[in-house]
Amino acid sequence: MLGVCYYPEHWDEGRWELDAKRMRELGISYVRIGEFAWSRLEPKRNHFTFEWLDRALDVLHKAGLKVVLGTPTATPPKWLMDEHPEIAPYDQNGQVRGFGSRRHYSFSSQTWWRESARIVEIIAKRYGEHPGIAGWQTDNEYGCHDTTVSWGPEDLRAFRQWLRLRYQSTDQLNEAWGSVFWSMEVNSFDEVELPCRTVTEPNPAARLDFWRFSSDQVAAYDKMQVEIIRKHSPGRWITHNFMGFVLDFDHFKVGENLDLASWDSYPIGFVEKFPFTEAERNRWAETSHPDIAPFHHDLYRGVGRGRFWVMEQQPGPVNWAPWNPVPKPGMVRLWTWEALAHGAEVVSYFRWRQAPFAQEQMHAGLNLPGLDEWSVGGLEAGAVAEEMAKLGDLGAIGKAPAAIVFDYASYWSTKIQPQGRDFRYEELAFRWYEALRRLGLDVDFVPPGAPLDGYRLVAVPCLMQVSDAALAALENTDAVVLYGARSGSRDRFFRIPENLPPGPLAGLTGNRLTQLSSLRPGIEEGVAGGASGHAIRWREYLETNAEVLARFENGDPALTGKGKHHYLACWPDEALLSSTLKLLAERAGIEVLDVPSHIRIRRRGNLVFAFNYGPEEWTAPIKGDPILGEKRLKAQQVAVWRV
Amino acid sequence: MLGVCYYPEHWDEGRWELDAKRMRELGISYVRIGEFAWSRLEPKRNHFTFEWLDRALDVLHKAGLKVVLGTPTATPPKWLMDEHPEIAPYDQNGQVRGFGSRRHYSFSSQTWWRESARIVEIIAKRYGEHPGIAGWQTDNEYGCHDTTVSWGPEDLRAFRQWLRLRYQSTDQLNEAWGSVFWSMEVNSFDEVELPCRTVTEPNPAARLDFWRFSSDQVAAYDKMQVEIIRKHSPGRWITHNFMGFVLDFDHFKVGENLDLASWDSYPIGFVEKFPFTEAERNRWAETSHPDIAPFHHDLYRGVGRGRFWVMEQQPGPVNWAPWNPVPKPGMVRLWTWEALAHGAEVVSYFRWRQAPFAQEQMHAGLNLPGLDEWSVGGLEAGAVAEEMAKLGDLGAIGKAPAAIVFDYASYWSTKIQPQGRDFRYEELAFRWYEALRRLGLDVDFVPPGAPLDGYRLVAVPCLMQVSDAALAALENTDAVVLYGARSGSRDRFFRIPENLPPGPLAGLTGNRLTQLSSLRPGIEEGVAGGASGHAIRWREYLETNAEVLARFENGDPALTGKGKHHYLACWPDEALLSSTLKLLAERAGIEVLDVPSHIRIRRRGNLVFAFNYGPEEWTAPIKGDPILGEKRLKAQQVAVWRV
Amino acid sequence: MLGVCYYPEHWDEGRWELDAKRMRELGISYVRIGEFAWSRLEPKRNHFTFEWLDRALDVLHKAGLKVVLGTPTATPPKWLMDEHPEIAPYDQNGQVRGFGSRRHYSFSSQTWWRESARIVEIIAKRYGEHPGIAGWQTDNEYGCHDTTVSWGPEDLRAFRQWLRLRYQSTDQLNEAWGSVFWSMEVNSFDEVELPCRTVTEPNPAARLDFWRFSSDQVAAYDKMQVEIIRKHSPGRWITHNFMGFVLDFDHFKVGENLDLASWDSYPIGFVEKFPFTEAERNRWAETSHPDIAPFHHDLYRGVGRGRFWVMEQQPGPVNWAPWNPVPKPGMVRLWTWEALAHGAEVVSYFRWRQAPFAQEQMHAGLNLPGLDEWSVGGLEAGAVAEEMAKLGDLGAIGKAPAAIVFDYASYWSTKIQPQGRDFRYEELAFRWYEALRRLGLDVDFVPPGAPLDGYRLVAVPCLMQVSDAALAALENTDAVVLYGARSGSRDRFFRIPENLPPGPLAGLTGNRLTQLSSLRPGIEEGVAGGASGHAIRWREYLETNAEVLARFENGDPALTGKGKHHYLACWPDEALLSSTLKLLAERAGIEVLDVPSHIRIRRRGNLVFAFNYGPEEWTAPIKGDPILGEKRLKAQQVAVWRV
Repeated sequence: MLGVCYYPEHWDEGRWELDAKRMRELGISYVRIGEFAWSRLEPKRNHFTFEWLDRALDVLHKAGLKVVLGTPTATPPKWLMDEHPEIAPYDQNGQVRGFGSRRHYSFSSQTWWRESARIVEIIAKRYGEHPGIAGWQTDNEYGCHDTTVSWGPEDLRAFRQWLRLRYQSTDQLNEAWGSVFWSMEVNSFDEVELPCRTVTEPNPAARLDFWRFSSDQVAAYDKMQVEIIRKHSPGRWITHNFMGFVLDFDHFKVGENLDLASWDSYPIGFVEKFPFTEAERNRWAETSHPDIAPFHHDLYRGVGRGRFWVMEQQPGPVNWAPWNPVPKPGMVRLWTWEALAHGAEVVSYFRWRQAPFAQEQMHAGLNLPGLDEWSVGGLEAGAVAEEMAKLGDLGAIGKAPAAIVFDYASYWSTKIQPQGRDFRYEELAFRWYEALRRLGLDVDFVPPGAPLDGYRLVAVPCLMQVSDAALAALENTDAVVLYGARSGSRDRFFRIPENLPPGPLAGLTGNRLTQLSSLRPGIEEGVAGGASGHAIRWREYLETNAEVLARFENGDPALTGKGKHHYLACWPDEALLSSTLKLLAERAGIEVLDVPSHIRIRRRGNLVFAFNYGPEEWTAPIKGDPILGEKRLKAQQVAVWRV
Repeated sequence: MLGVCYYPEHWDEGRWELDAKRMRELGISYVRIGEFAWSRLEPKRNHFTFEWLDRALDVLHKAGLKVVLGTPTATPPKWLMDEHPEIAPYDQNGQVRGFGSRRHYSFSSQTWWRESARIVEIIAKRYGEHPGIAGWQTDNEYGCHDTTVSWGPEDLRAFRQWLRLRYQSTDQLNEAWGSVFWSMEVNSFDEVELPCRTVTEPNPAARLDFWRFSSDQVAAYDKMQVEIIRKHSPGRWITHNFMGFVLDFDHFKVGENLDLASWDSYPIGFVEKFPFTEAERNRWAETSHPDIAPFHHDLYRGVGRGRFWVMEQQPGPVNWAPWNPVPKPGMVRLWTWEALAHGAEVVSYFRWRQAPFAQEQMHAGLNLPGLDEWSVGGLEAGAVAEEMAKLGDLGAIGKAPAAIVFDYASYWSTKIQPQGRDFRYEELAFRWYEALRRLGLDVDFVPPGAPLDGYRLVAVPCLMQVSDAALAALENTDAVVLYGARSGSRDRFFRIPENLPPGPLAGLTGNRLTQLSSLRPGIEEGVAGGASGHAIRWREYLETNAEVLARFENGDPALTGKGKHHYLACWPDEALLSSTLKLLAERAGIEVLDVPSHIRIRRRGNLVFAFNYGPEEWTAPIKGDPILGEKRLKAQQVAVWRV
Repeated sequence: MLGVCYYPEHWDEGRWELDAKRMRELGISYVRIGEFAWSRLEPKRNHFTFEWLDRALDVLHKAGLKVVLGTPTATPPKWLMDEHPEIAPYDQNGQVRGFGSRRHYSFSSQTWWRESARIVEIIAKRYGEHPGIAGWQTDNEYGCHDTTVSWGPEDLRAFRQWLRLRYQSTDQLNEAWGSVFWSMEVNSFDEVELPCRTVTEPNPAARLDFWRFSSDQVAAYDKMQVEIIRKHSPGRWITHNFMGFVLDFDHFKVGENLDLASWDSYPIGFVEKFPFTEAERNRWAETSHPDIAPFHHDLYRGVGRGRFWVMEQQPGPVNWAPWNPVPKPGMVRLWTWEALAHGAEVVSYFRWRQAPFAQEQMHAGLNLPGLDEWSVGGLEAGAVAEEMAKLGDLGAIGKAPAAIVFDYASYWSTKIQPQGRDFRYEELAFRWYEALRRLGLDVDFVPPGAPLDGYRLVAVPCLMQVSDAALAALENTDAVVLYGARSGSRDRFFRIPENLPPGPLAGLTGNRLTQLSSLRPGIEEGVAGGASGHAIRWREYLETNAEVLARFENGDPALTGKGKHHYLACWPDEALLSSTLKLLAERAGIEVLDVPSHIRIRRRGNLVFAFNYGPEEWTAPIKGDPILGEKRLKAQQVAVWRV
């Protein structure tokens, strides 16, 4: 199904009916509204002006549209910030991040929690049982613009309290953090400082705890909103629209609060955000990289425990990347189908009509700026709607043959302690995902500790801390498992395990790490054997009692296998990663299909989708004629087979 | 005529007479003094020590030198800053920019206005009718070191007041700024904040208003000084010495206060400041690019409504660029002649003698550091003086065949909303100017709204907001006009026009813009037809009822013409820009002369000047023998023909 | 002899005896302890817990180890920082650099001096005559993490006081600084501000004074500690462990307090810190550049007036560089021998055992993390110990044939006024050192003003200010002397000398500088004659009455010689530098031996050492068979001959 994000408060009320009518004509079923409207709902404290929203809801509902209502907490209004300056977040330099855009609040502020609860309750009460409301969105894009973590006095207060609960005594905290090093010991929790603005780097254990604390706050804040809504809006689902490549909080944790996950898909903008090479950026500038959106579809399907939406789908050029090209013709349609193929229940475009004013005036909509006239994206959305109608039900998403264990804490840990400047967790996980999909495989994402039943290949790109639950899941799986470098290299207090890395994985892998190198760009080391290529960025020195499947140039083990458990002791280049995963897929008995760099395959129900990100054509080695598109797949085209 | 900048306070009084005598011997007519001498004129509040300046003026006057006296407001002394810390400016991070160099004041400070008026009045009264005083300079290099805009509490106070006057009510402000977006609405002008230090980008409309406000303050502050001086110094002219590539305030507005404009020409330093490629920087490192100084000569001739000086001419290596090479032999002479050819009334070297102390000790002068001994620049200045004497009156500057409409607000607007990281207004305007001069054309600069009578080709590289006056001037011109991308793309409140861009230019151009791409480096799109080359950086999608003169690869219009009004829907590379301007010059009936990249031509009165920036020699295709220099023009040489 | 850095407070007391035993078994003689243990010695004010240190000392002493005890002032504990927040240093933006790592104090804080004296006295009294104590280390790595200079209110107070003593009157200060420029004059010392956070650059004379002041404070602070220790610990020597490439204070001045110098040698980490090209960084990534450690050995031997230790020797990968590779096999041994060859009395590894916790958990030790098990570095250290035992006494270090005059103030001066962005003093000095060693020469470092007796070649890469003492030493030497660019270019008040540069060196060199160019990368100028190559980065224009030994392309003098005094008027590329030094070595009658870029030679007593940094083998042109290693020297190998 298709949806759209709409801001009735941006347009003359006289235009609402036509807007709703044209939405239906285009094939739109869902409309998300309200998430930035606080100053229009409560222009002054306790002075409420809900009537316009009442009317807007009625117009939409009467037109047959289902409404997703957002809580407006991403944009506290000026009067509130002036009343309570303590709500504002602080940056790492201790400077206030002030009013004037959005997300200007700290999760640590008790005032903010109280005020959030107040406005959410008022809205939930008023609209909770409105027949037009299908579901709710909490806040908007937690963590976007680097807003998970704040570095102010409220944050310090809350962090100390969190530490008190976690450690009970400063003795335990000093022990856990190794504070004896550099005389960092504290005698009271009130002596703990924020782990920033130190002369040289702060204690990594303190930093990890501060990140955990910050992540916990997001989940708890979201839960507070969810519980209020549930109370007042029975029978409606609740979601949050996550952002792409925001890894500062544990999305799985927030997902636990929700009925389904959703995310905001800006495939082209993300090409500038992700650490691609310049050559890759140029290659994918006008189509996006074929795994950028799918990576998130699969991740958020995991976060939503099988259910997800695209809440905001890029419908044309956006405004916020360093460069913002027009997508190639067909890409809005392709992205929509790609989302559906990965299981999206709804793809909702952002936004209905380009706004001619304020920060996002260069962000395309389904209609031209201020006009009742389709943009290119609007026309492509309409085409998808027609095609969806023809195809009917797309079927259920099955369990993929391969799973990636994705771990937010490993992102935090490697940011805190990269050891090599280019060790980037998100890049590593993405490359592993890309390599699996280049083998034609569907991929699920699972959090560490979740059961791994039913998978045949489990990839663990890097799992710094292996909890008891995570270990148990790995011990219990029948899948072939591949662990990447640094897995098991820290305990929960950010210490090197007593048995050396991979710590809890020593038994499963048969390995012990005695040394490691981070390798500057230009330094690499060849690997040969059952898999081959080069180690770049990171290279580990192992002692092993496992089978050595590939070796470094000097004979050291590079890839080991002990039963089903394999360990790759480096950051692999593309060749090594690909050949390693191919070897393991073979060991797992999974059939693979090498696809070119611009082609991707995805299955849903009994449908097989193929996507061509261009520019070369491609003939799909899939039996039979597609029910949508052509077997000889042109650039920016989609084909679908029923199998 | 030639001049020089002199600091009697830097040297023993016993040396002044010899200095004055040697100035006259070199051929100097004007001396600028006094602009940094506050602490020597008023070492403590109301304790004045003008006697030394009296004596210095007398020495210079007696030697036959005409004096330009600067107001000393660029360097408020320490006692004043200690008395009134509120004078100091703030940077964008909210940090005070303190005492210890220069320009440490905010234009928003009411204290500062009062103190400025006080010292200017005292000086103007004392010296206003001194027979040695030929004219005045207000302050020094407004806006240099990023000092147009300040971000402190005084600035916020003044900005709110400016907004009150502009918008009358917060309803109007909220409407104009589109504050409904992200709940940014205010209930009182005292709720408005500075548009900085926000979580993500601030409202572009607010930023544009803050920039306008800051620009207005410069013009008003200058006017305050000018009015005081006029009152006390009848018959003397007043100027200000503008800097190069400082675009933060509207120089045309300040120019309206003045009798003539002047500027400070550092051709080599600017090679490092302007966004040239590294290859260009290396090519022009020791000569400067042939359009760097001329661009400003022509711009400031426009700012001065036909009259301008070079108040500070680089006489050798300077101290402030990342690298500071010795100019190639002959360049100081060439730059001086180039300025004269563009209509400079006086070229005044900075400075008489290199100072062996303080911040600019590595800045060359006409004399070696501390000595009475010519530097290379001094010798070249002397050579020019002799040549000028031979040539006699250089004639008047005529109206150029081509004009560039130059718009400071478009610089602000594209800085506020680049949309593509490398869309730089100053670079665009410079490249258009360069392309016109590569066709051998003289160029005038005019502000938007000024009459365009008498021009045959009018270039509008980018005019984001088209005022009624600007539109009228364009409607009324007989010239062939070329508009660049983004022209007419915003209204005065920074909104997309209701009829889409080019908004007010829709009628003249026949175009409507429906999409646009910013293109990252490496992405380009071919253009062919009446003009050809590539679009880089920026590409627009037009609907048009005009003639299509060139098309993009996919057939879309790239260059349109409707009557005399042409529109180029991209950022053109050199080939496309050159061929477009050539086509339009042809349509305008202007004869062009392709000159190599290192050669430039310029006319003044009945003289034709040719300049060779080297290294290759060049034979001028100009009839007859030059009256200065040789027809076969060597590197770093000048030739002049009478025609 | 070998040593090790040990932290008994990091390990269960039950492990100390085994640690001590294994140290002895490995061949360790010295143990440094205590320098970060303040919070364990005084967990609360006046609550002392020395008993554990008593026991640790006894265990080490009984095992036959000699202890170096560090004062714990690099890590003031939290309770002290909370009591006295004024101790904390400020960064250049005026922000506090807080508790949470180390070196969080300002040398300007009087409180800090009082507290330092208190803890040092308590410890010196308690352990001063302990039989296990062989010597003392003051503090730890002064200046590391950019901590020499602090920019807070305490620093301003102390700076004003320092200026009062230096200048006596503000008239003298204003005169010395040239404050008349830009009205920077002050009427009272309390009007002086820190030379930072100005609108454009602050006065260079003020900056140089602030740097001198900051440097003086380090030396005085160290002296305070030294005097306390001397009082209570008769017969023990005192050292400080300097860092590499920390040039913010004058190490020779601190060295005057000490009995011997020591330094912390991290050859691989420094490859990332020093401004090498990327190609060089890649080439030397896993071995270090062959001059990085030796440069410091020779420098600190000079600082220690002939006596130095390596207090911390890198034993494997470290944690703090952007990339941290495992050293190639053999490098720990090679570095140890290199240090000994340069005269190190003791090479002490950092650290005994890798810590599994806190900031340096990725820093290798002689034992694996937390274990009683040798790391690769531990095994190599053991090999050296055996070899040392075989070789016996290594002999005394003789005076080298060549000396480099190394001047911290010239580093400060060129940082303050680079004039060309890539004029880096430390790089220049390093390249001169490298070029001398590529000629097979041993090199001493001497401070300006020290006698130059006995040297045959004296290199002065850049000596901005030439004091009377420095001039006298240069006048009195019999050596052939080579001065580099900028020598003598400033007086002590940072003014250009009245006779122009090289100022006081005019007589010796016969030169006068009239112009200079800084050259951007890509601009170079050929030099030919007795030496040849190219000038890069910097090029001077000289008048000379000396012999011109090489000329620039345009005929200007590039290398001059007047008697024994030579001047090189540029930043030379490798070819020009090498050929110049070869020419001068010939003039000095020194025999040279061209060694490849990866080979170095060094003499000690009657031993000749050769080091191969790899990867190519090399056959030493040295007579006879080595007493250690092989004549055909393999990569990462050492050979020693007795001659």
